[in-house]
Parts: sequence; structure tokens; C-alpha cells
Amino acid sequence: MSKLRFKISMSLDGFVAGPHQSVKNPLGIGGERLHEWAFQLTMFRRLLGLEGGEVNESTPVVEESLANIGATIMGRNMFGGHPGPWDAKNPWNGWWGANPPFHHPVFVLTHHARKPLTLEGGTSFTFVTDGIEAALELARRAAGNKDVSLAGGAKAAQQYLALGLVDEMELNVVPTLLGSGERLFEDVGHNLHGLQLVRTVAALKVTHLKFVKR
Amino acid sequence: MSKLRFKISMSLDGFVAGPHQSVKNPLGIGGERLHEWAFQLTMFRRLLGLEGGEVNESTPVVEESLANIGATIMGRNMFGGHPGPWDAKNPWNGWWGANPPFHHPVFVLTHHARKPLTLEGGTSFTFVTDGIEAALELARRAAGNKDVSLAGGAKAAQQYLALGLVDEMELNVVPTLLGSGERLFEDVGHNLHGLQLVRTVAALKVTHLKFVKR
Repeated sequence: MSKLRFKISMSLDGFVAGPHQSVKNPLGIGGERLHEWAFQLTMFRRLLGLEGGEVNESTPVVEESLANIGATIMGRNMFGGHPGPWDAKNPWNGWWGANPPFHHPVFVLTHHARKPLTLEGGTSFTFVTDGIEAALELARRAAGNKDVSLAGGAKAAQQYLALGLVDEMELNVVPTLLGSGERLFEDVGHNLHGLQLVRTVAALKVTHLKFVKR
Repeated sequence: MSKLRFKISMSLDGFVAGPHQSVKNPLGIGGERLHEWAFQLTMFRRLLGLEGGEVNESTPVVEESLANIGATIMGRNMFGGHPGPWDAKNPWNGWWGANPPFHHPVFVLTHHARKPLTLEGGTSFTFVTDGIEAALELARRAAGNKDVSLAGGAKAAQQYLALGLVDEMELNVVPTLLGSGERLFEDVGHNLHGLQLVRTVAALKVTHLKFVKR
């Protein structure tokens, strides 16, 4: 069965987004500091159509996290747009433009029903209103022999972690403080459900902690 | 001038002690899990008069943290005993018995005045009631050419971190969740005051992140 793989960048004080997230500032105040290490990478810049960058210890970690993914799950907040029911007249189609970087089916957890959205390059968004386990089932079916990526945000991740549904977790610990915002391990309890640290990769501006379910 | 050096073990979810700390359970529920990696080390066991153990990647990190320390600062809660004024009839003299493992002057932050306490082996406890900066000044003078160790607990550490008084920090990140308890980075703000990650040491059950002020 395809694995549910989760990766996220977290500050030393446990935040995965800064305070005051909004449509204009989806990462919250200071949240961009969690991703500076990634923006330094040639491979990451290329995905965004940017030049320059470097190859360092983080490169193979990110390459691994992107490989063999056949479907993605994300929370409504990560898909974006104003909270509440969908605006039919002025529909929000995600942050990623006409050709999003997923190139596979994406399942969005939401309380508000909406028809599936098919964009260019093989990316579709299916809106799932009957819970995280239903979304995982759909994503696994869509992924086939490949794995499912849990893209975030914090609320979605917390629900999968609390139920022990995550098979692999790559935690990118960034040596900075955000002081407030959204914590990853909030209401997750004290049980990692068998996730064990199997690899630590040290870079200058991030420490990658890989957990695998045993 | 002697540096203020701080080391502490922290769970993935940011806790340095579990919930319900008490005289009988000073680390709180589950808090002992933060220190399992240390109890595996031969050198740590020897300090406690125990046999066995192993030498691993953590050994030089702990050796470094113990070297060149001439004085220690700790909070009242770490020194222990029931909160509030000192009990003159039944005095609490710390957790460590007649010959504590410090062998140098220790300064205890407290709101309640008490005469200094001198125990065996060169360890003395001086109770400082006029704040963290006064305690640091006294500890620096006592340490001479050596450094000052900030032993914890969380509340004491938070105050020194928030004022930017910590020169070196060794964060032992333990791949476990406590779910609740005492957070290290609570009310510390979003400023590390120049503390930068300079070294990452990976062991199986702990990741050591060393920060130095630049």
C-alpha cells in the first residue's frame, strides 16, 4: 500500500507558520524564514523558474521527498482563499497559477463541497468533505504504486499525526524563533505512533530529521 | 569575560519537562524520556556511580559541555523543594545529597532570601533574590577565567534567553513527544539575539544543535 509521507519546516520553537496568516501573507509574519534554506537550492529555484542557487546537503533530502509521489493531500487553508464557503462568482483556484507544480491529483480537506477542478499539466484538485480518512483512501487509490504526500498545513498534519496515519515524516528544523503562529505539534498528544528517527542530515541553516514508522 | 553557557534537552514538541512536576517527580510525567540518551553514556553513568553504558557521538558533546565551568546558575524550581518561603526547620538542600556533582559555586534564583549553603566537594549554593542579572554578575565573578553554566529550568532559561544574555546554547533535541509540560521557548519572543547554529551532531536518540553568539 502506498505510504503517507509528510514533510514540513518548523522553527526551533515549534511553529510551521508565523502569526497573522492571510491571503496576502500565507506564511504569516516571519514565516518565510522557515523556507530560506530551500530557496538557496538550485533544484528548488528551478522548480520556480529561478536561476542560481547551490547544491548542498539538503539537495538529496528534497529530491527524495519529491520522488515517487502519486497524489497529494492538503488542508483548505493551504489551498488558500478566504475561509468559509467557496465564492462561485470569483473562484479561488489555488496559489499556483494555471499549471501548478504537482502534476498529479490533489485532495483538499474542506467543510464546503465543490466540484473538482482540473488545471494544466496533470494537476487536479478534488475537494473532500467527509474527513481525513476518506481523503487518504481517495489519494491512495489515485497514487497507485506511488506514495501520497501530506503537504500541510498544520491543522491537516495534526489530524493525521494524532491518528497515527503518517508513515514517514521529514522534519526540517530551522534554527530560528517565530515567537508565535501555528504550532505543528498542537493537540497531537504524546504518541508518535511508531515514528522513529532514522536519519539526521545537518546543513548550515536547517537540520533534516527523517522519521519512519516501525 | 566568562561566557554564559546553556544546555538542555527538549522534545520535538518543545517541552523540557513533562506535566505535573513535583518533589516526587521533578521531571514531570514522561520527562525522563528526554534524558534516556544521556543515561546510555558511560561517562554520564560514571558521574552517577553506575557501571556500563556506551561511548557514542554524544560523548564528546557532553564532555565539552562539562569542561571549563567555574560556576552554575539555576532556578528555584530546579534546586527543588516545595515552592514558597524556605522551611527553616526542615531545610531543603537540593536533590544531590551531601556531595553534589557541581564542585563549584552554584547561584539559585529565588524570591525568598536564605543564607548560603556550603556542602562537600567544593559545592556551595548562594540564594540570589535580586534578579537574573545580579546572579550572572555573581556567577561570573565566582567563575574567574572559566565559564558559567546555566543549568535551567525552563523559567530561568527563558529569562536569560529573552534578554539575550546566553552566549552558547546546546539544544539536545529528542525525537519524542511529551504533549504537554513546560516549554523552553515560551515568552522568549522571536529573537535569538545573535545565537547561530554552528554545529549539528546526530546520534540515534538525540540531535545536538550547538548555537554560539555572533
